[in-house]
Amino acid sequence: MSSLMIHCLNLACGDLYLAAQQIVGPKFRKKILLIHNSKLGKVLGMSTKDIGVTVRRSEEFSEWYTQVVTKAGLADYSVAKGFIVLMPYGYSIWEKIREFIDKRIKETGHRNAYFPALIPEGLLKKEADHFQGFVPEVFWVTHAGEGELGERLAARPTSETIVYYSYAKWIKSWRDLPLLLNLWNSVLRAEITATKPFIRNSEFLWQEGHTVHETKEDADREVMMILNLYRDLIEGMLAIPVIVGKKTEREKFVGALYTMTLEAIMGDGRALQMGTSHNLGQNFSIPFQIKYLGRDEMEHYAWQASWGVSWRLIGALVMVHGDDKGLVLPPKIAPIQIVIVPIFFSEEERKMVDAKAREIQAELDSAALSVEYDSREQFTPGWKFNEWEMKGVPLRIEVGPRDLKAGEVVAARRDTGERTTIKTEELVTEAQRLLDRIQNDLFQKARRFLEEHTQKASSYEDFKQALQAKGGFIKACWCSVQECEDRIKEETGATIRAIPLEQEQAWSTCIYCGKPADKVVYFARAY
Amino acid sequence: MSSLMIHCLNLACGDLYLAAQQIVGPKFRKKILLIHNSKLGKVLGMSTKDIGVTVRRSEEFSEWYTQVVTKAGLADYSVAKGFIVLMPYGYSIWEKIREFIDKRIKETGHRNAYFPALIPEGLLKKEADHFQGFVPEVFWVTHAGEGELGERLAARPTSETIVYYSYAKWIKSWRDLPLLLNLWNSVLRAEITATKPFIRNSEFLWQEGHTVHETKEDADREVMMILNLYRDLIEGMLAIPVIVGKKTEREKFVGALYTMTLEAIMGDGRALQMGTSHNLGQNFSIPFQIKYLGRDEMEHYAWQASWGVSWRLIGALVMVHGDDKGLVLPPKIAPIQIVIVPIFFSEEERKMVDAKAREIQAELDSAALSVEYDSREQFTPGWKFNEWEMKGVPLRIEVGPRDLKAGEVVAARRDTGERTTIKTEELVTEAQRLLDRIQNDLFQKARRFLEEHTQKASSYEDFKQALQAKGGFIKACWCSVQECEDRIKEETGATIRAIPLEQEQAWSTCIYCGKPADKVVYFARAY
Repeated sequence: MSSLMIHCLNLACGDLYLAAQQIVGPKFRKKILLIHNSKLGKVLGMSTKDIGVTVRRSEEFSEWYTQVVTKAGLADYSVAKGFIVLMPYGYSIWEKIREFIDKRIKETGHRNAYFPALIPEGLLKKEADHFQGFVPEVFWVTHAGEGELGERLAARPTSETIVYYSYAKWIKSWRDLPLLLNLWNSVLRAEITATKPFIRNSEFLWQEGHTVHETKEDADREVMMILNLYRDLIEGMLAIPVIVGKKTEREKFVGALYTMTLEAIMGDGRALQMGTSHNLGQNFSIPFQIKYLGRDEMEHYAWQASWGVSWRLIGALVMVHGDDKGLVLPPKIAPIQIVIVPIFFSEEERKMVDAKAREIQAELDSAALSVEYDSREQFTPGWKFNEWEMKGVPLRIEVGPRDLKAGEVVAARRDTGERTTIKTEELVTEAQRLLDRIQNDLFQKARRFLEEHTQKASSYEDFKQALQAKGGFIKACWCSVQECEDRIKEETGATIRAIPLEQEQAWSTCIYCGKPADKVVYFARAY
Repeated sequence: MSSLMIHCLNLACGDLYLAAQQIVGPKFRKKILLIHNSKLGKVLGMSTKDIGVTVRRSEEFSEWYTQVVTKAGLADYSVAKGFIVLMPYGYSIWEKIREFIDKRIKETGHRNAYFPALIPEGLLKKEADHFQGFVPEVFWVTHAGEGELGERLAARPTSETIVYYSYAKWIKSWRDLPLLLNLWNSVLRAEITATKPFIRNSEFLWQEGHTVHETKEDADREVMMILNLYRDLIEGMLAIPVIVGKKTEREKFVGALYTMTLEAIMGDGRALQMGTSHNLGQNFSIPFQIKYLGRDEMEHYAWQASWGVSWRLIGALVMVHGDDKGLVLPPKIAPIQIVIVPIFFSEEERKMVDAKAREIQAELDSAALSVEYDSREQFTPGWKFNEWEMKGVPLRIEVGPRDLKAGEVVAARRDTGERTTIKTEELVTEAQRLLDRIQNDLFQKARRFLEEHTQKASSYEDFKQALQAKGGFIKACWCSVQECEDRIKEETGATIRAIPLEQEQAWSTCIYCGKPADKVVYFARAY
């Protein structure tokens, strides 16, 4: 369908609906809305899907995801395979994530720095496990201009090695500790085969924290402090509930003593690792010679932690909250929290509505709400509704002549579609209340989904059936032997996502080998 | 000298001075200060230079610069040649620059985005001049993991090509214009031979704006708007006066229609390009096929602008304002504007001073001043004075028991060394007043330096003599022929830095060829 044709149809749809609404008043609104959303659309031979996402979330999750990411203006594919562009709307979400983390880490004594993007091969090799873990996906720089380099340089896949080279120079005494630095940068990991915007790319934006401590216990505390910070971000801002726990030896960060993780369930029942916080022990301080003169006047190897979250959190927002109409953003992370759409049918009405809309915009703006007034003349209200729904703006305020005469506006929630009539003098309070409610409801809804998709298995048969039927997390008992973990992955595709911090009593033997189990763990098929 | 020995000497120096000061009172302060700064130091066989910069700015500018950069904690060398680490203190300055620009560009409708770090060779080659200009310094990625890539990828030396590949997809109609995006990233340009932290590195942080417009005039306006923004940043925040003008064809950005520039003079008389803003004309929109359907319903190639400033501004701060004691920061760009140093000789005094210092800190903090209370117990006040002077903190407040009894504190300016006694009840007002004055005085001082280092030449002999004697800018008349420009560069090392926007009447013929001159231009030897 040509964009002109869609435009005309949309105009017809949107305007019929809106004209009707402004004529008959609030009493019949719900009925008209139904017509607008289904029958009228069908009669005119179009659906909102033509100008939006063309597949259903419940039917083709992966295609639906990619369409939402690109059509909502979060990201676009770039020229080289596996690389994406973070578009302005997506970048605004990243800025909000960045601001939250940046403020919190600065309050706890951390500071930002920048380290080189290229790492000499010899340095990357210093911690052997770490190197082996990353080498299959390293982009190698071999030439500068016309000349060949004496030593290859790796486009950083992560910065441990280049950072710890400097730390070894900087740290002399216990008085230099803790050293608490964070980097905002991008890292490169060649993903030549399967790619997925935000989730699996050859380059992604992230932050990586690298801290140095006197003792293992200090590093433990850092790991947990950051884990809590991430939890506040992900649950409090992104409205995504997480399972918090430890990774198994198999799944931990290459080079870490242990890894703590936050895991969430996406809309298709697959798990996504949302962030990790590692105690590196002395695994890097020994090869990199990061030593300090202790309070005991003896030399010690330092203890280290590292931690990070990436732009995959934006992907998680889409996969957890999105629906068939597109993105649904929790108000606390939404770059635009409220969009005002004016509705009018004559020039006289346009002027009146425009004046009121600007007034409302200023009022909401001065209440520190992020508000956009969509005064574009080339689009009909119906078109605008679809566009802002696609972009997931939490609250839409419609300003029409009939409502204005009654001293009212209509507020429509993106998440539920629910429409409320609000007295204009109560607008700020009501808008704030609605936004709070949306934030809370989205979290509760996601939590219910998580609970419904957390199943308990007592046998391997149980386990496979649950995984097959519904996906999500399967809680099961495990003997802590890696061979069982490996076999389960080979046979079912599920991995142990986390060993939860608060352990329940095992209710069965190891689901795989039948030997005594000492841990209850969360399995899932994951991204 | 061992660090312990320096510590003891400094302790001796600092404490003698401070004890004396607190005993004899304000009347003899100036005299004691003199002793502290020269005689006493010599008697004890040390000077502040041992723990600070070991060369004089006036004697070894380049070595002095590198020492200030590293000893003030702005940057450190990393492992690969030409790469530096932007350390937390330097990063804080970059954050201030970033905040200023980010706020201003968002107010004028620009938004941030992120584009890939690697650019396929074929894409980089699309604009031939542009490619030729950058190819000698491109880092090439040839392998991913074990495999060789089918096409080499360039670590971005600048993002025009990768950005415009997307713009061609995104822009359809005049309604999509202007498209105003900005990127905060790092770019890589191999500097294998001469490197200088912040000024000439293989990688640097910067911002690059890329905008698309309907007409040449719109692009012209964007170029000037950004030029003014940069001027406000550099003159208003960094207190560095600039010459604003156009680059010659020889010196313009490769691929631009024309380049506007801001040029400053460093402490050694050499010029530094502080920022540039380019009108790209249709030089990229034609090869990249960035077309739009105009208001006239015809298809047009778009007009483009690009603009950027980098972390070299931090280098400029050092080279313009620094002195033999280290960095001197203008208050508006200083991460720490005020440092409070407690002075005491007994535990009783320590408690009293500590309580008052914290009170003062809270008071200054709540007045939105950025203040640090240096309560470290392992260092003497003298040591702290030197350290904060090295770091260029604009104002030091000394809190000692004698002053406190009189309801006073001492404020010392970093730029002039001037010390003032301030009533504690007037502290916030006085501190603000002093900071404003420091900001203003630094700019005036730099402006006088610029004026004193701007000479006028009427002949080539004049020109060479002026360049030899004093350096700085040489204003001279030029015939607009590139051959004269080339020859002057070959023979003297000076290039045309800018053709100033407001042209004076030429007062001589072309200084090189003697033919009629139609332009007055600024020459200089530059970094």
